[in-house]
Amino acid sequence: MKKTVHVDLGSRSYEIVIAPELIQNSRTYLEPIIEGKRVAVVSDPWVSRNYQELLKNTLDPITSRWDLYLIQEGEDAKSFGCLEGLLDKMLADGIDRQCLVIAFGGGVVGDVAGFAAALLMRGIELIQIPTTLMSQVDSSVGGKNAINTRQGKNLVGSFLQPKIVLNDVSILSSLPANEMKSGYGEILKYGLLRGDKEFVWMEKNLSAIMNHDRDALVEVIRMGCETKASIVSEDERDKGKRALVNLGHTFAHAFETFAGFGRFQHGLSVGLGVIAAGLLSEKTGFCPEGITDRVKKHADDAGMPISLQSLHSETTWIKEELYQKMMHDKKTVNGRINFVLLEELGKPFVCNTVCKEMVLETLAEIGAV
Amino acid sequence: MKKTVHVDLGSRSYEIVIAPELIQNSRTYLEPIIEGKRVAVVSDPWVSRNYQELLKNTLDPITSRWDLYLIQEGEDAKSFGCLEGLLDKMLADGIDRQCLVIAFGGGVVGDVAGFAAALLMRGIELIQIPTTLMSQVDSSVGGKNAINTRQGKNLVGSFLQPKIVLNDVSILSSLPANEMKSGYGEILKYGLLRGDKEFVWMEKNLSAIMNHDRDALVEVIRMGCETKASIVSEDERDKGKRALVNLGHTFAHAFETFAGFGRFQHGLSVGLGVIAAGLLSEKTGFCPEGITDRVKKHADDAGMPISLQSLHSETTWIKEELYQKMMHDKKTVNGRINFVLLEELGKPFVCNTVCKEMVLETLAEIGAV
Repeated sequence: MKKTVHVDLGSRSYEIVIAPELIQNSRTYLEPIIEGKRVAVVSDPWVSRNYQELLKNTLDPITSRWDLYLIQEGEDAKSFGCLEGLLDKMLADGIDRQCLVIAFGGGVVGDVAGFAAALLMRGIELIQIPTTLMSQVDSSVGGKNAINTRQGKNLVGSFLQPKIVLNDVSILSSLPANEMKSGYGEILKYGLLRGDKEFVWMEKNLSAIMNHDRDALVEVIRMGCETKASIVSEDERDKGKRALVNLGHTFAHAFETFAGFGRFQHGLSVGLGVIAAGLLSEKTGFCPEGITDRVKKHADDAGMPISLQSLHSETTWIKEELYQKMMHDKKTVNGRINFVLLEELGKPFVCNTVCKEMVLETLAEIGAV
Repeated sequence: MKKTVHVDLGSRSYEIVIAPELIQNSRTYLEPIIEGKRVAVVSDPWVSRNYQELLKNTLDPITSRWDLYLIQEGEDAKSFGCLEGLLDKMLADGIDRQCLVIAFGGGVVGDVAGFAAALLMRGIELIQIPTTLMSQVDSSVGGKNAINTRQGKNLVGSFLQPKIVLNDVSILSSLPANEMKSGYGEILKYGLLRGDKEFVWMEKNLSAIMNHDRDALVEVIRMGCETKASIVSEDERDKGKRALVNLGHTFAHAFETFAGFGRFQHGLSVGLGVIAAGLLSEKTGFCPEGITDRVKKHADDAGMPISLQSLHSETTWIKEELYQKMMHDKKTVNGRINFVLLEELGKPFVCNTVCKEMVLETLAEIGAV
């Protein structure tokens, strides 16, 4: 089974191809883009150790030369130092504006490689081959890239749309359970953004997805990519509608900055954030009661945390301080927090008039004191 | 006298306003853009010492807050370290996506401030107030920004179109003679790109320009900006026609990398590069003889170097090595150097089929051994 999602961005449009065993069969897709040029593959040690051979067989005959650039695993690679080191190495090797960058790895590789491609000679071509559920379903769509600074995550970055995204679901079978759950946090979000039909499908197919069933994975990744693609194509530069893909993220970012980054996976935080957004939607009266219970049950079935304690038991979660973190979110404007709320499944909207008490009550309901 | 150049880039279009005493009278232009928001002014110690008061009077009543960020003077500021330091300081101060950056200084300030604005939260709004002839006539048009790496100049950068550019010609009266000559190197280039009528005007008005006559400055800066704007609006991302604004630059970059950066002003190198491009155009038979003599005389009248010795007498200029530098120019593709040549004044074109001997002969004619 193979699915294709078209990301409609005028002259920057591209395809996302989703299929099993895609890397070894990617020549059809890559050859017309690479056209014999030189390629810089950016990856991390784990991915390259396990999958470099697959890529090598495809790249050898269709490139004039390709080199592997490894960045360290984990969020620490999203730093100025790592970016500068990568750019410096590429330039010293003679990478020029005719070359292409392939981001081959998870979200961190996608961010650093995408940022490097955006800045080299003010932008060279980029191909994304994401290797985690999280990056396939979410971070590979929309052209955003960024690094972290001491003030927060993703505060410095740019936009560069790839020429193509290849989502090989076979590669996901080696993903640890926690990484699958983390990716599923974003999928949960897309299910809620889409509507009841998709959410029912997810309820039915949850165990197939978590057990790496290829058809189920292709379908659910298509759903996520298509949802994000349709939003991004209306608002590439994140000036309005793209805010909707932040459902759950105002909460999730507060959880992460309060506990300290790296204590738990981003997607797990998003999953719980989505539940909190549902609770807040009910509390404010926008959304009928009951929907969030269903979402909570689904997250629980997926093995995802449904309370702050199960997200990270060593943290004492203080609601007032979590609220202060939200006040300092980069999307908070003039002290008004921008929440994405739901009227019902498939009907999200941005609301910046939620009163503090309701947010604190919501945080209490998921375990904050 | 006031002139306005419209840079037509669809939703990213903007105006360049050129007038004397513009900074103290800029409220009309800045207020609708700033709308009471917070502003980060990036400048260097010299400019801020001399002109901060003018800007302060305009900004105080129309911003909620404004802060001054100083970067060091000179090309060394175009580094990763300086960029990182600036971004870090802005973020620590709470600069968010609602804030604007004003680049207030010469080309270096424009590059670093523009790059910082492009990367902060993936792009916040930018206003340019260039304070040198070079930056008013050239680097403030077209949205390019960059820093240098150990491999070369401007190899890492991005695009960010400003909301407005304010070119205050009064500020140029304090510019040292060598800075005026350097800016004039780019003006010379635009004169040749435009045609005989403009070049005749420049021949007549040269001494007025060099003596800071305001009307002559407004007119010649308008001519330069308009020429670049019309090219950039056809090719914002530098994929084709924008190459024409590189007339003289393949030579100029080779002179600079061979001698070592900072030995002489960029614009002086460009002026001599333009002469070399003219000589090469005649040698290849594309351009009738005589035009370059006229250009050379004009450059000489402007007090600009018309030989490599007068550009930098301490350097032994070796033509073979200069040629090798051109081979490694970032615009050289597959070993083919892209020269911008002239058929006549006002008729530039890109040529990548010039044989090596003709280039070496040209270099010899301007003093290389």
